[in-house]
Amino acid sequence: SSLSTIKVTKTSLSPDSIINLDQGDPTLFEPYWRRMGDKCTVVIGGCDLMSYFSDVSNICWFLQPQLGDAIKRLHRVVGNAVTEDRHIVVGTGSTQLLMAALYALSSPADRHPVSLVAAVPYYSGYKDQAEFLRSGLYKWAGDAHTFDEDGPYIEIVTSPNNPDGAVREAVVNREEGKLVHDLAYYWPQYTPITQPLDHDIMLFTFSKCTGHAGSRIGWAIVKDKEVAKKMTEYMVISSIGVSKESQLRAAKIIGVLSEYCQHFMTADSENFFEYSSSILKERWGRLRNVVKNSKIFSLPKYPQGYCNFSGKYTDPNPAFAWLHSKEDIDWESLLREHKIIARSGQRFGAGPKYVRISMFSPPEMFNLFLERLSAIIVNTNGNVVT
Amino acid sequence: SSLSTIKVTKTSLSPDSIINLDQGDPTLFEPYWRRMGDKCTVVIGGCDLMSYFSDVSNICWFLQPQLGDAIKRLHRVVGNAVTEDRHIVVGTGSTQLLMAALYALSSPADRHPVSLVAAVPYYSGYKDQAEFLRSGLYKWAGDAHTFDEDGPYIEIVTSPNNPDGAVREAVVNREEGKLVHDLAYYWPQYTPITQPLDHDIMLFTFSKCTGHAGSRIGWAIVKDKEVAKKMTEYMVISSIGVSKESQLRAAKIIGVLSEYCQHFMTADSENFFEYSSSILKERWGRLRNVVKNSKIFSLPKYPQGYCNFSGKYTDPNPAFAWLHSKEDIDWESLLREHKIIARSGQRFGAGPKYVRISMFSPPEMFNLFLERLSAIIVNTNGNVVT
Repeated sequence: SSLSTIKVTKTSLSPDSIINLDQGDPTLFEPYWRRMGDKCTVVIGGCDLMSYFSDVSNICWFLQPQLGDAIKRLHRVVGNAVTEDRHIVVGTGSTQLLMAALYALSSPADRHPVSLVAAVPYYSGYKDQAEFLRSGLYKWAGDAHTFDEDGPYIEIVTSPNNPDGAVREAVVNREEGKLVHDLAYYWPQYTPITQPLDHDIMLFTFSKCTGHAGSRIGWAIVKDKEVAKKMTEYMVISSIGVSKESQLRAAKIIGVLSEYCQHFMTADSENFFEYSSSILKERWGRLRNVVKNSKIFSLPKYPQGYCNFSGKYTDPNPAFAWLHSKEDIDWESLLREHKIIARSGQRFGAGPKYVRISMFSPPEMFNLFLERLSAIIVNTNGNVVT
Repeated sequence: SSLSTIKVTKTSLSPDSIINLDQGDPTLFEPYWRRMGDKCTVVIGGCDLMSYFSDVSNICWFLQPQLGDAIKRLHRVVGNAVTEDRHIVVGTGSTQLLMAALYALSSPADRHPVSLVAAVPYYSGYKDQAEFLRSGLYKWAGDAHTFDEDGPYIEIVTSPNNPDGAVREAVVNREEGKLVHDLAYYWPQYTPITQPLDHDIMLFTFSKCTGHAGSRIGWAIVKDKEVAKKMTEYMVISSIGVSKESQLRAAKIIGVLSEYCQHFMTADSENFFEYSSSILKERWGRLRNVVKNSKIFSLPKYPQGYCNFSGKYTDPNPAFAWLHSKEDIDWESLLREHKIIARSGQRFGAGPKYVRISMFSPPEMFNLFLERLSAIIVNTNGNVVT
């Protein structure tokens, strides 16, 4: 079969193994999709999907109509975003769409690049994206809390936030500001769905919704027609659209997800969001159990919220743990000594006393991580780490 | 079935229909792949291809190994490029890879952006790509023939060239120059394959090789390891890799293509390159027949060449016709009056007396185009168009 060579090799971990918890690779949701058997299987013939075009009547002419429909249905079912009379722009992950949003919201007529801000701790990728091409359209201006320049600016509001899981709102709140809401984690497995959001530009990604990171499918829900046009223009100049195969598969999987949410809500094991939140909840419980033994290390606390989707009060279970140390240590180096790779708080505009750890690792790896973290805590309990 | 909604609607053309020959959408090769039945079909399960990662031991860690293997095999079979000991970087079309090459070849340490040049007539997209983000790393410097600035530069060499089909070599030839070879059309259906090319960075695209434009798969063959690393970095920052579904399907289709080239060379109808070149050859014959009746319009002439792949002398059959007028007319406007949309020579750095016309349109559309062009020629024969 065509897939025979792509099975992932399961590596068995040893006490010497390096554990990479730097990225948030969401393969832990794979067993759910395996259990769904061929309900989500797509079959693509050699002569299918050959054209650049999907729907020439749409502003985003490379969006497969069935993916646009599936996205709108899922948001209605989950209740996390308003899509009526909104434009959908599809991207190669929400990563490419953030670049498209910067392009759409900046103005070539301005002599000065527009400032891009996000509240600390901010997702490390934003700074890289804003700076790597040295664009004259926009420039990275760092922490939204300390931003005091006059003139136009763009603020990225990430909610729940990566790295720290906090529910957020815009910080600067000035008239000349434009907002991009990155809602990658505003799904029921990560946080209570308290209301359908209705911002100007809202970014979502298939990666964090269902765990299909390899498909590189993201979408923007956009209010303004001209902004949707300019975002589409960015996609055309930078890659002439987005993989049709991925779009087709995302449409299929998102369709099945919506179907199961609508018709099997009572059977928890059949509902993806119940399944994925139960895994994350169990992991968070175990991690908190380990960290509570430390006098110097801590995790953020999150308030419960009423989730309109599940119809009950739920705890947030973020995709990343944002570990803090009261004492003056360099978390990233300390973890590296214990063969754990994680991302330093410095990358997020916070200090080295913070570190971001993926909660998405394979089960065996997560177990080994907790073992090593327990050992670190025993070694450091009550002591300043040197 | 999951594909039931994606069949392209065949619009039937009327004398009033607008004919769009602006883009080169290669759907004319679809019948070949349809005839292949399920030989190129891919089946992707709901739990497949979920990870960001494909091969962490490779510089381009998001490249599916079977796609890398299929690409190398195809180049060996066709004989158009050297791949031994070269790095393969996959992209969302060769469009994204050109951006990656500009990033990799420019230097953040330089105070001035590096100049990007291409010989007129150059592909219109290069200028857009170089300018749209106002990068401080590189700047568009136009025609390579008239380039006279000192210092480092990047020259894009497109061969066969888009728009005019010419076989090309580098023009500036100075020590401080870096070259990117865009070889999208260096396949047997477009031009004789005279030698395996072996340049520093060579770009190819699935779109023009087999006609699968919707998959958005391109690849770069790169000599230098550090350049391959920086191109990969561009892909990571701008989109965290490339659709795995498209990569899987491209691997399958390219694999079948190579297989048929190796084992069914004698049965012309079974060989994709024979099939596609026969369609283009027939179209070029009919187009030349129409244009020869004009005293003021002309098409480029191409020398025959010995094609190592087919083992015979063949005529080039470019993907675009590059029409020229001796008289002072604006081709784009003239065609538009006759409800034909084509791209003005001005977009390619040439004058409005040139126009680029896609040879890839559906058969019915190509026929109507020739009818209308005949009428234009009858109207203008020997006369200056006003």
